[in-house]
Amino acid sequence: MDAAVALADSARGLSSPNPNVGCLIVRDGAVIGRGATAKGGRPHAEAIALASAGSAAAGSTVYVTLEPCAHASDRGPACAALLRDAAPARVVIALADPDPRTAGKGIALLRAAGIAVDVGIGADEARRAMAPWLMRIEHGRPFVTLKLAMSLDGCIALADGTSRWITGERARMHGHLERARHDAILVGRGTLEADAPRLDVRIEGLEDRSPERLVLTSGDAPDGWQAIASPDAIAELDGIESVLVEGGAGAASAFLAADLVDRLLIYRAPILIGNGLRAIGDIGLTNLASAHRRWNRVDHRDLGSDTLDVYERARNEDCTASSGKVGTGFPPE
Amino acid sequence: MDAAVALADSARGLSSPNPNVGCLIVRDGAVIGRGATAKGGRPHAEAIALASAGSAAAGSTVYVTLEPCAHASDRGPACAALLRDAAPARVVIALADPDPRTAGKGIALLRAAGIAVDVGIGADEARRAMAPWLMRIEHGRPFVTLKLAMSLDGCIALADGTSRWITGERARMHGHLERARHDAILVGRGTLEADAPRLDVRIEGLEDRSPERLVLTSGDAPDGWQAIASPDAIAELDGIESVLVEGGAGAASAFLAADLVDRLLIYRAPILIGNGLRAIGDIGLTNLASAHRRWNRVDHRDLGSDTLDVYERARNEDCTASSGKVGTGFPPE
Ligand SMILES: NC(=O)c1ccc[n+]([C@@H]2O[C@H](COP(=O)([O-])OP(=O)(O)OC[C@H]3O[C@@H](n4cnc5c(N)ncnc54)[C@H](OP(=O)(O)O)[C@@H]3O)[C@@H](O)[C@H]2O)c1
Ligand SMILES: NC(=O)c1ccc[n+]([C@@H]2O[C@H](COP(=O)([O-])OP(=O)(O)OC[C@H]3O[C@@H](n4cnc5c(N)ncnc54)[C@H](OP(=O)(O)O)[C@@H]3O)[C@@H](O)[C@H]2O)c1
Repeated sequence: MDAAVALADSARGLSSPNPNVGCLIVRDGAVIGRGATAKGGRPHAEAIALASAGSAAAGSTVYVTLEPCAHASDRGPACAALLRDAAPARVVIALADPDPRTAGKGIALLRAAGIAVDVGIGADEARRAMAPWLMRIEHGRPFVTLKLAMSLDGCIALADGTSRWITGERARMHGHLERARHDAILVGRGTLEADAPRLDVRIEGLEDRSPERLVLTSGDAPDGWQAIASPDAIAELDGIESVLVEGGAGAASAFLAADLVDRLLIYRAPILIGNGLRAIGDIGLTNLASAHRRWNRVDHRDLGSDTLDVYERARNEDCTASSGKVGTGFPPE
Repeated sequence: MDAAVALADSARGLSSPNPNVGCLIVRDGAVIGRGATAKGGRPHAEAIALASAGSAAAGSTVYVTLEPCAHASDRGPACAALLRDAAPARVVIALADPDPRTAGKGIALLRAAGIAVDVGIGADEARRAMAPWLMRIEHGRPFVTLKLAMSLDGCIALADGTSRWITGERARMHGHLERARHDAILVGRGTLEADAPRLDVRIEGLEDRSPERLVLTSGDAPDGWQAIASPDAIAELDGIESVLVEGGAGAASAFLAADLVDRLLIYRAPILIGNGLRAIGDIGLTNLASAHRRWNRVDHRDLGSDTLDVYERARNEDCTASSGKVGTGFPPE
């Protein structure tokens, strides 16, 4: 399932409006088919993996990150039907389809054909790989990542605004890779005016993955930018499943205060600044207890002499697949 | 040599006024003797290790973190002479004695007796274990560690001063262990008045290692405390080789601005505070370039959901053993 999740991850930011699914077919200990949802959403991961496995799929074990779809469309057949016809011995599914109208139908179709079906293996990792799509399905808004590049003491610039450079080459390159994984990037109007950032992906071969550019402002946006009047307004963005908030402190605080940050990327340089500009301002916190238990660290790595820590918002009950909080933009196809 | 350094480390904060040395004697692949400088500085590590090895020391290999002393005193014989008489085949030394008046004499005495001597193996680790003693010898002042317990965004308290608790139980326990390793702890007058901290070691069995209590203030100190009128004034403290600065922002900034911090302990809780009190204030930084290349990360660990990062001040030329910057408090015996 880890390999299937990695395939799902590789289609992140490309498969919209469909979920980025990964599929792996194994027989006698050898991988005989592999697939990830193609650019634009079709073909589906299962169809690609089955095509490469051919007739060898009979009797195999299929690993797939999301319950196979049960409804045919004019863009292709239902994956559950394709799988049934290929007659694997077993299908292992990480996540059931969160769409309450179809959830379980793909599984039922496979079981009715006598195929063994397991659900739930690798669910956490699959949720992480498909987080943007799930956020849209379950909460009707894009998945928001807040990126902060700061000193050990939490400054993003000197008091005079100088911020070139806090972090080094490798951390900035990593930041560009994160841009390529997002549908849109957002900065506050202050940062747009101070830095006139291009917000493009400056990595060879990935230039065409430069995302949409959003500016948080009560005013208008310049050419090439789209104005967002409040953090909540991101829910209305069409075709945007993931937003990377790159600052400044005003924009970061506005998203945090609205509890609209799902993931934190903290790039930290081994320097102390003292009385510089802070990474975030007022986020409406009134007591320390309520600051705790909100963030879980899911990654820590060195990037040259800098470090990257990744935290995810711990949303307990309100984040389960069948919460029923289905919002706009659903169903995707 | 790693084991000898660990022995040296175990005597940290106890061996004053003598260096905390570690010694290991190995013969035919087995450890036959072990020693660390005893409380108060005598017996020396080599004498303890030789006593436990007995006559088996003949033909052995001796690992010792510091060049054996070459001068007898009324508290005991010279270790180099003891070693010569025990007739090991080889003596491996991490660091030569930084005291320019005796450096090399211990090595010469051993070599003259036909014993093979290697110098420099494990020097970095040995320097770290003996850092406080070396700082006193080389720079005439105690080794200063600054401890900061903060949120991800660099706050040490809410805007109203509430700081109980930022970090969790395990991080606070680790902080108490650090106290036990220091000769003195310092806070600013603001913190003394706001929190009336006891600054003792609240770990069973280590209560008697509670260090001296210092307060940074232009005024007087209350009973049980010693007033320090400026960061530089720590050089005049008698019998103090290591100082742990525990805050607040004013004291931390004063030590950083004076470039008197040798080691940073950053305990970080997975919380965001926003507009709280900052860990440090003005440290006199005027450009970003001069903030870089000052701190090397030497440790990173998880303490429950908190993390600890340890940084050391990178002092290039001015930190070599034979810099000749010998100050007060020398020689120690
Ligand atoms: N080192 C780094 O990682 C980094 C990254 C980015 C920026 N920076 C620095 O940060 C500084 C800018 O920070 P900043 O805090 O002044 O500006 P900012 O966050 O970029 O922008 C603030 C603006 O965002 C808009 N805004 C904020 N909250 C809003 C809300 N709830 N609804 C609608 N609009 C909202 C407002 O625009 P209107 O006034 O138009 O309504 C506000 O003036 C610059 O110096 C920049 O260089 C550093
Ligand atoms: N979360 C944590 O880890 C943590 C740790 C410690 C403290 N805190 C909080 O931090 C706050 C206190 O911070 P603070 O910055 O106000 O106070 P502080 O740093 O504890 O003390 C400031 C005082 O230190 C003295 N001082 C500073 N620089 C000096 C210099 N160069 N020479 C001589 N004396 C100097 C001055 O005392 P005089 O005015 O007497 O001259 C000054 O008023 C409290 O709210 C406390 O709870 C939090």
